[in-house]
Amino acid sequence: MRAISILGSTGSIGCNTLKVVEHLQEFRVVALGAGKNVEKLAGQIARFKPELVAVESEICAEDLLRKISNFKFQIPEIVVGEQGLIDVATHEKAEIIVSATVGAVGFVPTLRALEAGKRVALANKETLVMAGELMTKAARENKAEILPVDSEHNAIHQCLRGEKHSEVKRLILTASGGPFRAKSKKEIGIATREEALNHPTWNMGDKITIDCATLMNKGLEVIEARWLFDFSATEISVVVHPQSVVHSLVEMVDGSVIAQLGVTDMKHAIQYALTYPKRQPNCLPPLDFTKISQLTFEEPDLEKFPCLALAYRALKIGGTMPATLNAANEIAVKAFLEGKIRLSDIPKIIESVMNEHESQAVSNLEIILETDASARKQAIMKLEGLQKTASAN
Amino acid sequence: MRAISILGSTGSIGCNTLKVVEHLQEFRVVALGAGKNVEKLAGQIARFKPELVAVESEICAEDLLRKISNFKFQIPEIVVGEQGLIDVATHEKAEIIVSATVGAVGFVPTLRALEAGKRVALANKETLVMAGELMTKAARENKAEILPVDSEHNAIHQCLRGEKHSEVKRLILTASGGPFRAKSKKEIGIATREEALNHPTWNMGDKITIDCATLMNKGLEVIEARWLFDFSATEISVVVHPQSVVHSLVEMVDGSVIAQLGVTDMKHAIQYALTYPKRQPNCLPPLDFTKISQLTFEEPDLEKFPCLALAYRALKIGGTMPATLNAANEIAVKAFLEGKIRLSDIPKIIESVMNEHESQAVSNLEIILETDASARKQAIMKLEGLQKTASAN
Repeated sequence: MRAISILGSTGSIGCNTLKVVEHLQEFRVVALGAGKNVEKLAGQIARFKPELVAVESEICAEDLLRKISNFKFQIPEIVVGEQGLIDVATHEKAEIIVSATVGAVGFVPTLRALEAGKRVALANKETLVMAGELMTKAARENKAEILPVDSEHNAIHQCLRGEKHSEVKRLILTASGGPFRAKSKKEIGIATREEALNHPTWNMGDKITIDCATLMNKGLEVIEARWLFDFSATEISVVVHPQSVVHSLVEMVDGSVIAQLGVTDMKHAIQYALTYPKRQPNCLPPLDFTKISQLTFEEPDLEKFPCLALAYRALKIGGTMPATLNAANEIAVKAFLEGKIRLSDIPKIIESVMNEHESQAVSNLEIILETDASARKQAIMKLEGLQKTASAN
Repeated sequence: MRAISILGSTGSIGCNTLKVVEHLQEFRVVALGAGKNVEKLAGQIARFKPELVAVESEICAEDLLRKISNFKFQIPEIVVGEQGLIDVATHEKAEIIVSATVGAVGFVPTLRALEAGKRVALANKETLVMAGELMTKAARENKAEILPVDSEHNAIHQCLRGEKHSEVKRLILTASGGPFRAKSKKEIGIATREEALNHPTWNMGDKITIDCATLMNKGLEVIEARWLFDFSATEISVVVHPQSVVHSLVEMVDGSVIAQLGVTDMKHAIQYALTYPKRQPNCLPPLDFTKISQLTFEEPDLEKFPCLALAYRALKIGGTMPATLNAANEIAVKAFLEGKIRLSDIPKIIESVMNEHESQAVSNLEIILETDASARKQAIMKLEGLQKTASAN
């Protein structure tokens, strides 16, 4: 039994990872890192009996302890905060770390897992967006592997099996186009929280679903792909493919295009990341070609979805600009989810934070953390400015 | 410069191979094998200056000699008949043999090339259909490689790069469906030669175009795939995909489907077979995703296209049955092209020849050649029977 730790075990990817673990019967869960969802974590502890669990705060820890103190088996050690997540990510028995927290919170723990030479099954794309250079350097120097869990990157990883880097012309990430693909720019601007959360093909967490609606998710994925596969911004394209059957494609120098297709269930990519290079049967239904009926492709509309253009711009500028983009986006999406701003305000906030940021080289962790903190502060200021303007009108 | 020989140099694949050779500038043509098209062969000799050429007969040889005798460079040696093609296929300098003759004529020469340990870029699918067992055994024992030039098998070869045989669930060959995909069974029955030769997506020779119209081509490809990739009939599926953009797919045990997409130009597959494992830029336009607009998939209709069912049946029976199917098909297609029978007579002739054939194990070349000759004779008898019935009516 190979030992795994999961960062973000109570989230969408975390829960699916545990389903895969149950199906495969060849992994042992040694550590779980969660946030505030103590109820769900308690259930996971009862089922998987980890040695270590992390929660967001002391209050959550006390709450959890109350819930599990009467369990009849050895109660796990409970740790808290970022250091808690780092302990989960670097658990000495864990061979594989599933990095599935949402947003920047998984950044340092994931870096530590790579420094400890672990295989990281990476669902937390912000990690690579913020500090792809540091992450991939840590992986290289410590012989750690990064296996992408995002379905698009997982697809590209599969398409690249047996191919040489120098023979790849470009990576082509597919985008469902989100719920607003066929809407006008005006309609998108006034979309409600509920409309934005209604993703056509994938069932995911709230933050990533909003990112899908703005196409920022695809932008973050372009940056992620840059680091995972070592291609430049001009070698990474996005094509809108509303059916989400083709998960992504790779165009080779000879014009051949290799694609990976599958059902839209994250368990596929999670299992691939856990068992790679082995492929094993899973519990998912096969792709039914007679039911596909048709697959369509179209160019993304950067006018309607400025977030994608902002991400390309951040990647081309490089340095700390992608971390700035990511931090500003997190703040803006949170504000949108809280009903404080409109969907069309998200790119405005990000752009104005980016405009005021002077990109620096990413030479160490501190620069990233400072950039992140400062961009968040800037974004909050922009947000307050927007709200004042709105209430003044 | 690597040396290559081409069997069937004046045909569609042969001419495209020479275009690829001209583009790549890293192959030298040492031998060309053609049939009766002496005019075209003379032009190829002038351009590529092979050391050896083969034509169908002494008459063709004399005709060719007249055409090239005043060439200012060293005139190639001219050989004739099947032995001539064998000489081309086993030319001692040739590292790669492109086997692109149509029908059974390429069978023995291709086998000899494999026995000589050459890489065979195989476009002549009848070779594997007739004697897949002997061919693959010869390749194994002599460390010869078979690289498929058929776009579907070439696609599968690409999809299988970096994959393990034991982790493949099934191969999925795409079929354009031919010109009669949307026609009724009755309309197909009375289709004219011109209608049958009007292939919607590929521009190929006459025999293969008729095979596409009856879906026999796909049936032969199923048998070919069985030998190229070592999967059973139940592990090879066919899906109708009229746009011919997805050239074929592979479903893995984990449900992941890997597909190869490209423009519909045989030069792609030919170049791949010549340069494998290297991929190199070619002279083809890239696949334009914005112009694809939509890809569709549907089940093949075995009722309307009984040739496909006959091919599966022959593969399942095994032994000499596929060679019988192939021989009867060649005779029937020839008769159709000569206006002697209707399109719907093709499967009738094949089925009735198959029904009278008792399959034997393929232990040696003679059994195949006897089977081929006897099935042709049988098919001609059936044909004459049909014509008598038709004229009596």
